[in-house]
Order: sequence, then C-alpha cells, then structure tokens
Amino acid sequence: MDISNLTKLAKLIRYYILTMTTTAGSGHASSSLSAVELMTALFFTEFRADLDNPDNSNNDRLIFSKGHASPLFYSLYAAAGKLTLDNLLKYRKFESPLEGHPTLEFPYTEAPTGSLGQGLSIGLGEALALRNLTGPATRVSQTTLQNRSTSWGSRPVKLRLGGPLSRHPSDNPNVFVLLGDGEMAEGSVWEAIQAAAFRKVDNLVAILDVNRLGQSQETMFGHDLSAYKKRFEVFGWRTIVVKNGHDLKQVLKAFKKLRTLTGRGKPVVIIAKTFKGYGIKVLQNQDNWHGKPIPPDLLKQALSDLGKVDLDVKGIMQKPIGRREISNFKFQISNKIQNPNYKFQKRNYKIGESVATRQAAGDALTELMDKYPQVVVLDGDVKNSLYTENTQKAHPDRFFEMFIAEQNMTGVAVGLSRRGYIPFVTTFSAFMTRAFDQIRMAGLGKANIKFIGSHAGVSIGEDGASQMGLEDLSMFRSVFGSTVLYPADAVSAQKLVEEMIKRQGICYLRVARPVTPVIYENSEEFPIGGSKIHTLSSRSASWRSGDLSNKIASSRKSGTRNDKKIVIIAAGVTLYEALKAQAELEKDGIEAIVVDCYSVKPIDKKTLKNLVRSSFARGTLANGVPIITVEDHWSEGGLGDAVLNVFSENPEVKVYKLAVSKMPHSGKPQELLDFEEISAKAIVEKVKEVF
Amino acid sequence: MDISNLTKLAKLIRYYILTMTTTAGSGHASSSLSAVELMTALFFTEFRADLDNPDNSNNDRLIFSKGHASPLFYSLYAAAGKLTLDNLLKYRKFESPLEGHPTLEFPYTEAPTGSLGQGLSIGLGEALALRNLTGPATRVSQTTLQNRSTSWGSRPVKLRLGGPLSRHPSDNPNVFVLLGDGEMAEGSVWEAIQAAAFRKVDNLVAILDVNRLGQSQETMFGHDLSAYKKRFEVFGWRTIVVKNGHDLKQVLKAFKKLRTLTGRGKPVVIIAKTFKGYGIKVLQNQDNWHGKPIPPDLLKQALSDLGKVDLDVKGIMQKPIGRREISNFKFQISNKIQNPNYKFQKRNYKIGESVATRQAAGDALTELMDKYPQVVVLDGDVKNSLYTENTQKAHPDRFFEMFIAEQNMTGVAVGLSRRGYIPFVTTFSAFMTRAFDQIRMAGLGKANIKFIGSHAGVSIGEDGASQMGLEDLSMFRSVFGSTVLYPADAVSAQKLVEEMIKRQGICYLRVARPVTPVIYENSEEFPIGGSKIHTLSSRSASWRSGDLSNKIASSRKSGTRNDKKIVIIAAGVTLYEALKAQAELEKDGIEAIVVDCYSVKPIDKKTLKNLVRSSFARGTLANGVPIITVEDHWSEGGLGDAVLNVFSENPEVKVYKLAVSKMPHSGKPQELLDFEEISAKAIVEKVKEVF
Repeated sequence: MDISNLTKLAKLIRYYILTMTTTAGSGHASSSLSAVELMTALFFTEFRADLDNPDNSNNDRLIFSKGHASPLFYSLYAAAGKLTLDNLLKYRKFESPLEGHPTLEFPYTEAPTGSLGQGLSIGLGEALALRNLTGPATRVSQTTLQNRSTSWGSRPVKLRLGGPLSRHPSDNPNVFVLLGDGEMAEGSVWEAIQAAAFRKVDNLVAILDVNRLGQSQETMFGHDLSAYKKRFEVFGWRTIVVKNGHDLKQVLKAFKKLRTLTGRGKPVVIIAKTFKGYGIKVLQNQDNWHGKPIPPDLLKQALSDLGKVDLDVKGIMQKPIGRREISNFKFQISNKIQNPNYKFQKRNYKIGESVATRQAAGDALTELMDKYPQVVVLDGDVKNSLYTENTQKAHPDRFFEMFIAEQNMTGVAVGLSRRGYIPFVTTFSAFMTRAFDQIRMAGLGKANIKFIGSHAGVSIGEDGASQMGLEDLSMFRSVFGSTVLYPADAVSAQKLVEEMIKRQGICYLRVARPVTPVIYENSEEFPIGGSKIHTLSSRSASWRSGDLSNKIASSRKSGTRNDKKIVIIAAGVTLYEALKAQAELEKDGIEAIVVDCYSVKPIDKKTLKNLVRSSFARGTLANGVPIITVEDHWSEGGLGDAVLNVFSENPEVKVYKLAVSKMPHSGKPQELLDFEEISAKAIVEKVKEVF
Repeated sequence: MDISNLTKLAKLIRYYILTMTTTAGSGHASSSLSAVELMTALFFTEFRADLDNPDNSNNDRLIFSKGHASPLFYSLYAAAGKLTLDNLLKYRKFESPLEGHPTLEFPYTEAPTGSLGQGLSIGLGEALALRNLTGPATRVSQTTLQNRSTSWGSRPVKLRLGGPLSRHPSDNPNVFVLLGDGEMAEGSVWEAIQAAAFRKVDNLVAILDVNRLGQSQETMFGHDLSAYKKRFEVFGWRTIVVKNGHDLKQVLKAFKKLRTLTGRGKPVVIIAKTFKGYGIKVLQNQDNWHGKPIPPDLLKQALSDLGKVDLDVKGIMQKPIGRREISNFKFQISNKIQNPNYKFQKRNYKIGESVATRQAAGDALTELMDKYPQVVVLDGDVKNSLYTENTQKAHPDRFFEMFIAEQNMTGVAVGLSRRGYIPFVTTFSAFMTRAFDQIRMAGLGKANIKFIGSHAGVSIGEDGASQMGLEDLSMFRSVFGSTVLYPADAVSAQKLVEEMIKRQGICYLRVARPVTPVIYENSEEFPIGGSKIHTLSSRSASWRSGDLSNKIASSRKSGTRNDKKIVIIAAGVTLYEALKAQAELEKDGIEAIVVDCYSVKPIDKKTLKNLVRSSFARGTLANGVPIITVEDHWSEGGLGDAVLNVFSENPEVKVYKLAVSKMPHSGKPQELLDFEEISAKAIVEKVKEVF
C-alpha cells in the first residue's frame, strides 16, 4: 500500500486503540501507540499471509512479544478487515476473544504473550520450523569433527553447519517479533538472540520498539539506539536503525532494506526510536500512563489530536502467493504422523536387568523418532546424561543442542509445537525450574511439548542438593492441562515416552539417575491415568488396573490372611523401597499392597478408590485401610498431595505421607533415602507406628 | 607469593583434585583442572581475606559460579591450610561438609552454587553490599529529572547516578566470581552483566574460565576469546584477556593489570583460555570426561603427569589489613537492627475502608525501612503497581530498580542477604516463576529474602491469564524452609510485612490487585502460623486463635443452633467470598465458621484441628464437620492442599476444595471468581451439595 493510505491506516489504528481501551476502562494504550507506524507498515507492505487461512504454512508469522500492546495487535487485524469496531469495543470483556494480552482465543495469536521476554524464543522456534529445521548447527572445528566421527563409531554422522536452506533461502516464510525495550533487560531475550545467531536463522526478524519508558520509569538505555545496535551486532545480528519510528518514510525505507537482508545467513533486527503514547498530547513520552487508558472525559480531546480519521479505509495484505511452491515445502508432516509400515524397534528388557529410567527414556526417544517424524529433540547440554547422544547421532536433523539456556529452549519448543512439531525438552529435573515462567505460559497456550527431566530426587546421591529435582512434580502438576509421569523401571519409561507423544499438551516425564531393576514384562502397557498393583505373591508379574479383584483374590490365596493391612503408594525409585518394605512387613504379619503410581497427573483415582473399598480393605481398621505414600520429592505438591486429593472427600482413609523434608546433601543414594526417611526402613517404621 | 611457590601450589592443588575425586568415585576433576592457575594465582596473590574470621566484612569474597569445580574450590582452602588431605578425601561422603557442589556446610561458601548462571548475580549483590550500596543508579536525563522532581511533589528526591563510593574507591573489598564458559549461554548471566555495568559496580571481578567444553560438547564459541571479550565490552565491562590461562606469568600479569582497573567505575572480567583437564594427558581437552574422575587404576599414571609434588608447600593469603579503617565502614548494620527510639508510623486503617493489600504492603515497607536499616528493596519495574514508588522516594539509597530481570534480582538478593541485608524482592506473583531456580537455590542457601508478589489470582480481572499468579503459593510452598503468607485486608498485609522482616529465611507475601474492605482492627496481631476465625456474629471484631472456645460460645449464644455446620477456610480475596457465603448460608439454616488462613505455610494446624473437635463440631455429621477450602489459585499446591495435609492422618474430616480449574481469561474480577467457582455463589452451591 502507498504511503498516503498507510498514513490513513495509522490514524485509524490510533483511533481504534484509544476508543477500545477507553471503552474497556483498562489496557495499554500508550505502549500500543509507539509501534503504530512500525506495525502498520509491516502489516500492509512486507507481511505476507492469507488471513482467511491462518494455518497456511506459507504465511508469515507475527508475534507481539510485548503482549501488553494487544490493542495495537487487534487493531491491525481490524484494519485488515478481520475484526469490526464492534468487536474491538468488546476488548477485555469476559465474553470476548480479544483478551488483555493476546491468547489463543484470537485465531491469529501464535502463542500467548504478556510475560515479557518470551516472544523472541517462540519466534525462533517458528522460524526454525518454517525453514523445515536445519540439522545441528554445531560449531565444530575440523579436529573436533574428526575426533567425533571416530569416537561415534561406525555410524557416520552428518554434521552440518547450521544455516539457511540452500534452495530458496528467501522463500522461507518470515517470522516477525515485536519487542519492547523494557523486556530487553530479560536474560531470556539474550538467550534467544545468541541462539538465533548461532543457528543463522535468517527468516527471523525482530522489531524493537524503543519507546524509552518501561512500566515505572525510563529503561536502562532510554533512547540510546546505539546501545541496542551494538549489542545486537556483537551477538551476531544484522541491524537496521530507524531514527524516527513514527516517520512512515523512514520505516518503509527500513523494510526495503530488510528485504535485502533476510535469507542471508543472519537474523535481522529493526531498532526504532519511538515515543510511548505517540500522537496524543496527554500521553506522549509521559510517565505514569503505563497500562492506563484515556479517561472517558478526555477521549474526545485525545481523538481530536488525530485530526480527521477515515473510518472506511481498509488495509490490504499481500498473500504469500509465489513465495515457493507448496509442493516443495516439506512442512506438511501431519500427514506423516504415523507410518503404518513402521514397527517400533523397542528394546526388549529382561526382568531383573538393571537399567536407569533416564537411559530407557533416551533410548525410546531415539527409536520413536523414526515412527514419529514430527518429533524433534532439544537438549540443554545434558545429552550424555540423558542418553540422547544417540538420538543426535540417529537424527541429527531433528536434534537441537540448545546449550545451557532452559528458558530459550522452552520458548523455542512453544514455537516449534505451534507449527506442528512435537518437541521434547530435555534437561535435569532441577533445571526445569529455570523455565517455569515459560512452562506456565506454554500451558496457557496449550502447547504440545514433552519434557523429560532427569536426575530427580535425592537418589542422585553425591552431586548434592543443587542437582536434585525435588520440586518438579509440584511445578508440573500446577501447570494448566499438564500430564505428569514418573516411571520406576525401563519398560515403563520406554512405554511412557510413546504415551507422551500420543497425548496432546504439556507432558512431563520424571526419570532418575540410578539404575533400577526391570520389573515389568515388555508386553505390559502403561496407559496415562493408570497404575500397577503389586501384591507380595506377584512380584515379577504385571496386571492391568482393571484386574484388581483377581489380583487381590490371588494374593489372598497365596498369602496369609492378616488383619493388619496397608496400602503403600510409590513411584520411581521409592517403588523399590516400598517393595522391600512389603516383604519386610509380611514377616511381621502385616499385609501390604504396593501401588506403582506412575501416572501422577492424572492419577488413577478409580483404582486407588477401589483399593480401599476392596475385599482387601474389609475387616481392617474401622476407618478403612490406611495408606502410606512415599516419594523422592519435597512434601509439598508431589505424589502424596496427589493422593490426598483423591481421598479428600472420603473420610475413611488415613494417609501418611513420607517425603523429603530435611536439607539433603551429598552421600550415597541409599544413605540419603534413609536420611530423608523415604527408604524401606522408614516405611516399615511408619507402618509399625500406624498399627 | 612468588611464581615458584605458586607453581608448587598449583601442582599440589592438581594432586588434591585428582586424589579426592578418584577416592570419592565421582566429581568434576576435569572442570576443576582448567582453572587451577587462575584460582591459585588469585588466592595467593590478589585475594585478601582473614580466613580465621570468614565474617570479617573487609574480606574479599570468592564465588564459584561453576560450582561443579568444587574439588578446586576445596583444594584452595586446603592449600591455604584450612583443610587437611584427610578432609579432602571425605569429599562427597554423607558425613562431610565438602559436598559435590559448594553448600553452606562449608564455612567459606558464600552461597550454594551448582545450578549454573547464578553466581554472578550473587556476586553483584555482595559487591553492592560491600561498597555499602550506592543509592539508585538511575539513568536520568536532566529533563526527566526535572519532570520527576516536579511530579514527585514537595519531597525533593536525591537522584544520584550510580557509581563507586567517592571515598576509598579501591578500598572496597572485591568480589571475585569464577564463571564457566558453558554457563555463558544462560540469560541470567547477561542480566547480571548488564546490571553490574549499569550500576558501575567496580568491585566485582569475573574470571571466565574458557575451557571450550561444556558437559556434552563444545560450547557455542569454543576457544574464541574475542567472542566473549566483545560481548562483555559492549555490555560495559572492562576486559583482560589471558591467552594461556595455564601460564602463571600471564595470569599474574593479568592480576597486576586488574589492580589498576578495579575501583574505576566499571566491573572487570578476566577472560582466560584454558583446557579442561589441563595437565593430565588422559583428560586434557577431551570430551566425555565431564563429571567423571580418573578411575583408581589410572590414578597413579595420571599423578605421574604432575611430576614431583611438594605435599608440604603452604599457600599464604594476604589479610585485608590496611584496606580501610573498619571504623569508617558502615556495614556493621546488625547493631542497628532495632532503634529503640523509633516508633513505627503505621497507617491506621478504618474498618470498612477499601484498600488493596498490595498498597498496604508497599506503604508498610516504606515505613518499616526507617525502623530496619538493613532492609533494602529490589523492584522489577512494577513499583507503580506495588506502591513502592514511595519507598524509592523515602529511601533512594536502599531502593534498587532492577528492571525486568527477575532472575538477577533474586540472585542479587541472595548476595545482599549473605552480607547481612534483608532484601525485599518485589514483582507480580506471576513473574516470580521466572526466578524459580534462583528461589530454589536461595532456599537451599537459607538466604534471608522477602518476596512480595502482587496481582495474584484471577481477581486481577481484565489483564488476563498471563498476568495472573496462579502457581505462586505452590511454588513458594515447595521451597525449603519457606514461609508463605496471604493477607486479606490492609491491616493484616501491613502487619505481615513486619512479621516477615522478623522471620529468618525465605518468606513470600501474596498480595492482590483489587481493593478489599478493612476487616481487622489496627491493634490486631498476625503471628506467622496463626489464623483468624470469623463467626457470623463477629464480623468486624477480631480474635486471637487461642480464644477459640469463647468465640464459638459467643457465636452459639448469638446465632441459632444449627445441625448443619461447616468450616470454610479461605485467604486473601476469597475470604470475602466466604464471608458473603456465610451470611447466605445462615438464611438456609446452615452455620458456617470462616477461617482466614493468612499463614499458608506454616499453617495453623492447632486451630484447624481444634475447630473440627470443638463443641461447634459436635452433633454434626457422624464423621465430623466438613471443610470447604476456597482459593484464587490452581487446585494444585495451594491453600487447599495445605489444609489437606493438616487432616491427612485424621480420617474424620471431609475436605472439599474449591480452586481455579478452568482456563481463566479477561473479564471483571467478580465474573472470573464466579466462572472459576470460587465465589460466594460457588461456595453456597458446594455447601448445599454437601448436605
């Protein structure tokens, strides 16, 4: 569109921003006004998308990392004819999809934003997806490369330097991310900046709206554009500086230059000097207007600052036609989700074999990537601990070394999942906490991400408390719509990796460092929401949860009939402690049923409730059979609390929780299990206290 | 010490590193070996500390941000005569204070490290403390300054540019932080880098051990020292590059240069090229040795690489004598903890007055800083939302604008608390999640930090889900040794701020956005671990929890005697919903007692247990009086779960939980409380379901 129409559109968009926020009585008018020219020019000259088909994989993508500028975001789509003024005037109302910060309720939102500093990582993920990923952008010197080829054995590894696709580099759809200057203080932004440069992601464009003012005061660098320019450049980006981000001529010139820079091996940032509240006298460049709309009595005056507004002007967006042939575009992987001819070459484990769940999970992931071409793996520099080194060797094109930057790793996963991939985010369970804000937001965005957190609990032993994931179950349970899994042996770990792939949404798999014996047959299934019951007579056998009565009957036959009965609910490493305790208790005439609660959320309510109502329970304590939960996790928010919630409204059940409660430290795993009173010994003692 | 002795010490330290890790059977030998020359030279030439008095406030401070290099860390103190070889050989044993990663068990550890990327923030906090803080390093142009002086009214604000103390700049004790190159990928490091430069913290020295190899592969920049140099410089640091970090001459030269750069307005980094595993052939510059010691059968061979080791050489450290007169050093604030002549000018609230708890907390903090000179406030650019703008005006020298960088803000607080200050970390409750890893580590370090998280829950309304803290209670409850508080009205918010100051450890105060009526008298006390009971007849009155029987008796007298009885446990905004429901239920002949559970952790077990055993409870359901919990928080890990834990072993009590369970969105606060079924209406419906 030409500059006179863009000028009209910019006015119209300012009109929208002011009226919708004043009508709503809240909202960030001033933060929206600073980026009007930047976004209007982008949307109606450079941006190419078929808005009637938001899922068109050739569409450019736009992310408002400064999500509080949502009035501008929605106004752009109104200017493009996709929303009416009436729609806008319902902004922030309960029934409206136009929420205070962009959410998936609005079909053009790529991912919810509003927690600052996350958008660039999400954009990086989308940009990687839209150029069909690129294989490992590993910076390797020739020497190292040689060493590796050797040490990696007979399977030659194609190590490619990251870079643009060799064909059609400029044909990749571009991802545009609007950044605020306030959020440049967030380290996560710098993680994304360095990762994008390292991977030479040249279809990623950041637009930095330097409006000088944060929420409560001037930013660290104010209007010093060079401070940002120098930093971006030294981090490996190309920069375009716009001295006046409200001068459409300058903005258009910047976009013209941008066209020569995308697809050229580096990400690009447009850095523009703007003013918060630009164009409205009472707001412009003033403190104390953050998140506040113009009061109704000042609206008329404020609107008069705009001059004549053409309410009928319509913005025309370019379609992504001719970008490249869709047939050349391999992205449509959804058709390939299952290859019916593929047989998962799962490893067969032997009962009693010692295998760490972290290894079983890593091995399963490596295998399953053949079956599920949309699975990609992100690693936080722990691939030699999580056994995903082999995953990288087998699938170098879908394995991303993200280095020690968990926030960006999670944000990238959000972007990848939004474009149809199923990313696995892998690191130590303790370090998942680093990305809690990103995980929280991913939950609100219903992102389809799988997390594998290793080295959970005090059972890691000697490395000490800083490396022990002791709040991960709690953290992931509190994420909206999440699934939380915790296998005890290799078979269940292997099976649960595939269950995660098949399940939509945020899934977390907690795996452990030490080896544990295989206790399930390879044929055993581990549906999410299930559990496994172990009676003393059935150690190596396995059952489905539906077989409860048979199981208890068979237990009854083989075991002695005891009056002292107890249910021990465990998962992961404590399952083995529970099984040891079970054998110990039998000697004292106490009959224990052990439940492997591998699905912590959703938890197997039905089986647990049936258990306390079963024939096993009858004839015991007047108030029903007592339960002991035992977990290698803080007492707050983990397995024990999940169980308490099952029985909260059932006053017949006493639940005794065993969990980590003292400051853990370095030592042998078994010493620590004893010290924290979550070992077989502690279980036996607790049971004896109960009776 | 001279270079020949340093050479001997370096050998000895290598000997220690190898023997202690091989004896332990685990530990990061190779990551320790790369920094031996850097740390030996630092410790025995530049570093000045009285090791017999670790609390001497003139001591330099050393933080191993790469905490996995703990073998080197402990070996330094052995070389200085503070540990024996026997001590070292107990490394990583259960009974030893020499843990896998440094912890406070070892008296020279400043703060636990091991989660990478946190040490520089902690160092920054200590460096700020050791130069007696500096007031607000606010970058303000003259115009802005004028605007502000005006808009801030009659009280003139002394805005000082951040910078070194004008007297004795080089006399400040220095803080040295050993950084690994792998952790440079963490955004939190860049947050610390930019904050230190912005505040001109020139007694902070980073030493970057560029050993090329991360845990699982080469880092992004390998041995490219210039990549780091350029980045640090553009972020405002001075740099010293050491081309061979194993050449003691070069290292000593670097420290000599350092002496000319500290105290000169900028932080300084020494960037040294090193080799992982240096000095030991089998390890040096090799992959696949991360975190693995030399196997016992290879130890002799490895030690032979060192040549002759002088086991008797002793390192001599300089004392901080003459640095500056301790009498000039204002840091000894512990003597000033309470000024007996000071009277807290607390605001008197009127019953029924509408005040947001966030405002009451901010106002209380402002007032209390006069009484508690060791309190400092860190703000994540939300001071106009948390009413701490006034705190800044009243105490500019103890108010730190940390911008939008919650991880660094928390790390700095750890450092400040380690040097005796009591830092308040303030932001939205939702954004506390950004710093979960730092908060987790702060808990393990028993840091004395107070967090105030505002805008909790769906009751924020229109801003939408991204801004709603819905997992903060869960997160803070799962932090080791934490205290979690949640006031409903202004009086309780005000009182709890002071309770937090008086309580040691991690404390979290959850405050809300909307105004709520004052319901407590100004004389009411809110001890941590307490609760308040509201019967229908006693709306505006207040009681101590000990008065339970009187309260219930008086309720009995004034109310009708009902057979249908229920206890409603609430906190914060839901307390008002519970009180509304209480009145509603009375009409239907249901007697409800409402508990204000302002102390979520520790929770008032005694009162809650007494309540269900009280005369109030008698004659109701066979199984005791039912409980309803209601909270503006996800169902997982919040108030409801805290209550479940009180009654887990008491099978007489049914607990019905009301909590946020649907995806929240923008809307009016009351609409959202209704939508999430945590409003008075939902409580009444739930109660009717129960009976």
